Amino acid sequence: MSDELSPDNNSFTQAERDAVYRAIAERRDMRHFRPGSIEPDQLQRLLQAAHKAPSVGLMQPWRIIRISDKALRSQITQLVEKERLATAKALGEREAEFLKLKVEGIDSCAELLVVSLCDKRDEHIFGRRTMPEMDLASVACAIQNMWLAARVEGLGMGWVSLFEPEPLAKLLALPDGASPVAILCLGHVDEFYSAPMLELENWRHGESLEHVLFQNQWGQTAKR
Amino acid sequence: MSDELSPDNNSFTQAERDAVYRAIAERRDMRHFRPGSIEPDQLQRLLQAAHKAPSVGLMQPWRIIRISDKALRSQITQLVEKERLATAKALGEREAEFLKLKVEGIDSCAELLVVSLCDKRDEHIFGRRTMPEMDLASVACAIQNMWLAARVEGLGMGWVSLFEPEPLAKLLALPDGASPVAILCLGHVDEFYSAPMLELENWRHGESLEHVLFQNQWGQTAKR
Repeated sequence: MSDELSPDNNSFTQAERDAVYRAIAERRDMRHFRPGSIEPDQLQRLLQAAHKAPSVGLMQPWRIIRISDKALRSQITQLVEKERLATAKALGEREAEFLKLKVEGIDSCAELLVVSLCDKRDEHIFGRRTMPEMDLASVACAIQNMWLAARVEGLGMGWVSLFEPEPLAKLLALPDGASPVAILCLGHVDEFYSAPMLELENWRHGESLEHVLFQNQWGQTAKR
Repeated sequence: MSDELSPDNNSFTQAERDAVYRAIAERRDMRHFRPGSIEPDQLQRLLQAAHKAPSVGLMQPWRIIRISDKALRSQITQLVEKERLATAKALGEREAEFLKLKVEGIDSCAELLVVSLCDKRDEHIFGRRTMPEMDLASVACAIQNMWLAARVEGLGMGWVSLFEPEPLAKLLALPDGASPVAILCLGHVDEFYSAPMLELENWRHGESLEHVLFQNQWGQTAKR
């Protein structure tokens, strides 16, 4: 293909495009890890990928706390376990089914990160006067970048949101206004799930693209 | 490198890794578009990339409305213009400076998409009993996937959040509980900004990674 031979500065080659689509397709929310640490340079690349995310008004609202203290990791495990049981109860008739799922890999992952929204967010008006929650959207973009970077590094990542934010904020000495939104488990894996784990476990099956796509008005079928 | 020669099913080659990191580094929030339509197959690839995003409890809360009606596009332009002026006023002493920025490219982009949170979200408890806003995080991951896919396709994308969600919801006949979170402009560009446009325009400069990174406790410097 001609663009393989002479890409201009703007354009990606077909091979580069394929690599990005492959990463998007093969990224998984991982809960099963095998032992082994992550090289500091490799972790740094993942963090830099997160930090290159877009953010509303360039506010860069993400704060990333690396948990290296073992006692702290154990306290976080307990917070998640408490919420796992509370969620199970709230699910009612699916309680037993939910309790069989592996919903986190905090004990076995190589690196544990807590991602939080920063404090003093009221100072940022650009792009969030009517929708202040756009700061969370920016943090999620950063996490998605890290997820894709982890996948191409051959590392698994899992986003755990089974926790009460307030006790976790207290545990990590977050200032007023800051709020944790993700516990990220990072580590080596034996293999990546062939499909989302919740599909493999028959918890829920994803819808097709057509189901989420409309044209001009909600409910109006999109033309191709 | 050996992994160039014999990648197993799990691993990405160095060239593939580089491509993903390049896309992450060169993605920009674009506001300047040049004429030209987007091929249906190309648009489909972007939408599929979005739809492959992770979502809390696999709820896939994103709904994407493609705006092909010209009158509708014009009404959306007016909604955004109204909020642009309201934001400018709210910014106080930076009002005039803000008004000089190009904050959207709705008039000139090839494709206009409105991304919304779905209705009936209360039915989804997994991963959001304590943080219901995790549905927005999932939608943002989908948008970030689309952003990276657009970049490798050589297309620019901009996320506009300058609007009041309620009138936009009304305009697109969103059901109760659904809520728009992004107006996405997609199109061809003459070139991608060499740095975030808000930096080039001296609106704000990004912080270094070190600024957002802590260890074990908020404010505690991260070790490498």
